[in-house]
Amino acid sequence: MRGTNSDKITLAHGGGGAKTERLIREVFQNYLKDPVLSEMDDGALVEDGLVLSTDSFVVNPLFFPGGDIGRLAVSGTINDIAVMGARPLYLTLGFILEEGLSLDVLERVVKSISATAEEAGVRIVAGDTKVVERGKGDGIYINSSGLGRLEISPPPRRERIKPGDLVIINGPVGLHGMAILLSRGELGLEAEIKSDVAPLWGLIKEVLSPEIKFMRDPTRGGLAAVLNETVEGMEFGVRLWEENIPLTEEVEGICEVLGFDPLQLPNEGKVLVFVERERAEEVLEKMRTHPLGRASAIIGEATEEYPGKAVLKTRAGTHRIIEPPMGELLPRIC
Amino acid sequence: MRGTNSDKITLAHGGGGAKTERLIREVFQNYLKDPVLSEMDDGALVEDGLVLSTDSFVVNPLFFPGGDIGRLAVSGTINDIAVMGARPLYLTLGFILEEGLSLDVLERVVKSISATAEEAGVRIVAGDTKVVERGKGDGIYINSSGLGRLEISPPPRRERIKPGDLVIINGPVGLHGMAILLSRGELGLEAEIKSDVAPLWGLIKEVLSPEIKFMRDPTRGGLAAVLNETVEGMEFGVRLWEENIPLTEEVEGICEVLGFDPLQLPNEGKVLVFVERERAEEVLEKMRTHPLGRASAIIGEATEEYPGKAVLKTRAGTHRIIEPPMGELLPRIC
Repeated sequence: MRGTNSDKITLAHGGGGAKTERLIREVFQNYLKDPVLSEMDDGALVEDGLVLSTDSFVVNPLFFPGGDIGRLAVSGTINDIAVMGARPLYLTLGFILEEGLSLDVLERVVKSISATAEEAGVRIVAGDTKVVERGKGDGIYINSSGLGRLEISPPPRRERIKPGDLVIINGPVGLHGMAILLSRGELGLEAEIKSDVAPLWGLIKEVLSPEIKFMRDPTRGGLAAVLNETVEGMEFGVRLWEENIPLTEEVEGICEVLGFDPLQLPNEGKVLVFVERERAEEVLEKMRTHPLGRASAIIGEATEEYPGKAVLKTRAGTHRIIEPPMGELLPRIC
Repeated sequence: MRGTNSDKITLAHGGGGAKTERLIREVFQNYLKDPVLSEMDDGALVEDGLVLSTDSFVVNPLFFPGGDIGRLAVSGTINDIAVMGARPLYLTLGFILEEGLSLDVLERVVKSISATAEEAGVRIVAGDTKVVERGKGDGIYINSSGLGRLEISPPPRRERIKPGDLVIINGPVGLHGMAILLSRGELGLEAEIKSDVAPLWGLIKEVLSPEIKFMRDPTRGGLAAVLNETVEGMEFGVRLWEENIPLTEEVEGICEVLGFDPLQLPNEGKVLVFVERERAEEVLEKMRTHPLGRASAIIGEATEEYPGKAVLKTRAGTHRIIEPPMGELLPRIC
């Protein structure tokens, strides 16, 4: 990117890992210098406790076990707002449709959007539709943007994390990524794994309290990407305990066979909650009473031992650095 | 669309005319029944005077005389908020990049976004980037969504229009549409016409007052589409006076040669202002003092004579119905 015009966008720039982050820093943040944008949070906390968020969805295929692009678009933006500690209120939807798309397919997606919005109690208040020529799109792309209102003070922010804080996740990791990979038939395996795609505000609002230091939904790039972003430049690091990380047998088995790291697999219905150590059990219990948190577990801690690093303590007792995903492991996953 | 699965999306569904409106009504509004969404305004007025808007931009080519997709994306959403009577405050941007895009091109677009946002005094507070495979996009698509705050009470609404109100436009029509057509080289003509793409809040805020009944920016589908949407189902109609409609010589000439209707050509820096007849001259004078309103003109009136219709009184003194554009006259214009 540095001065050479021949550099091109690659699929890795959209993978949610190191190349995505570099693109954001070197192009977008370089020219769009807003202090809120520079936070690189999932949502933007602007005046009066209002939170804005935007996300575009280009998932392939449009329908997959456990969900579809419509449910994904609604859930994704709801979750980005919710992890800021804000109640998602209003969504807008921007559709880019490819010429030749079946109206039947569009209807199914819009019905799914409607059902997911109703489930989450958000209103869809504005929309836009564009059509591009055949071969200039891929059926349906959806942008969802949203507005929420902060419901907790102080708001969760990574700067509030202190060594000793514990990390909770609301269930098994890697389901969305694995569901998409399997549904594309590229793995040469047959297994039915359902995406975890779901709107999380209902769960998050149950635990919102000043003791919640920080939350993020580990989507593109999985836990590996989100944890590295969380600790970057900080005086603390994060240690996960491998034995505590919830995994389904199916995801674990496929990861072992094919050499995937479940920490790099995207999730669309998971939230990482950083909470004061003393309150962690209480928060965990609350999360377990919610349908989307039954398998919640304390999976790690913030620690002074590895400032700026995310580290995994393996079942064998060794430690390894959790690297952010580098390449295009999973294009078009969301 | 009625029950047959074989119906497909066509370019006309994105043209901003009758097929777009039918798609919105029969698919989107059919399943997403929100009272604010049903207003079909450019922006959504939600609680506390907050206005949300969203728009995706798929213009081809990315750069054209007078602007580029970045300036278009920022201006488009600013204008949609501004015509609601609201000050645009914050924008979010969602990029869908095609694999192989030159980073140089992306940088130029982002610089243009930055300059336009600064010109308009809005902040870009959140962003998202996705990458799709080569042949599944067209360089860059951008969604811009935004939040504004209502600055006038009562807000402009088409229900407030009364027969006798006058219609002002801030300059010559059709520049954006014609600039795009020429830059594609499809017309077999050589002429340099610059798009009028510009953020209009600076102009609009000068005239905001309770006497402003309604405003719209005549983008896709031009004045023809917007006026038909304005009068639909109303007890009034609109009559435009052809001799008063500002047109540049170049646009008029090309329209005559090629048989285009300038009223159907898109604009990206124009606003139609419906104002109380008694205050129209005053508003006109104010608009003319602004750089984006020098060529403002009173071009028509709301009238009881043609309820629910938009009518043109021609230079010859005859009247003709202004039909909404039907087909894909201008795909990928914004």
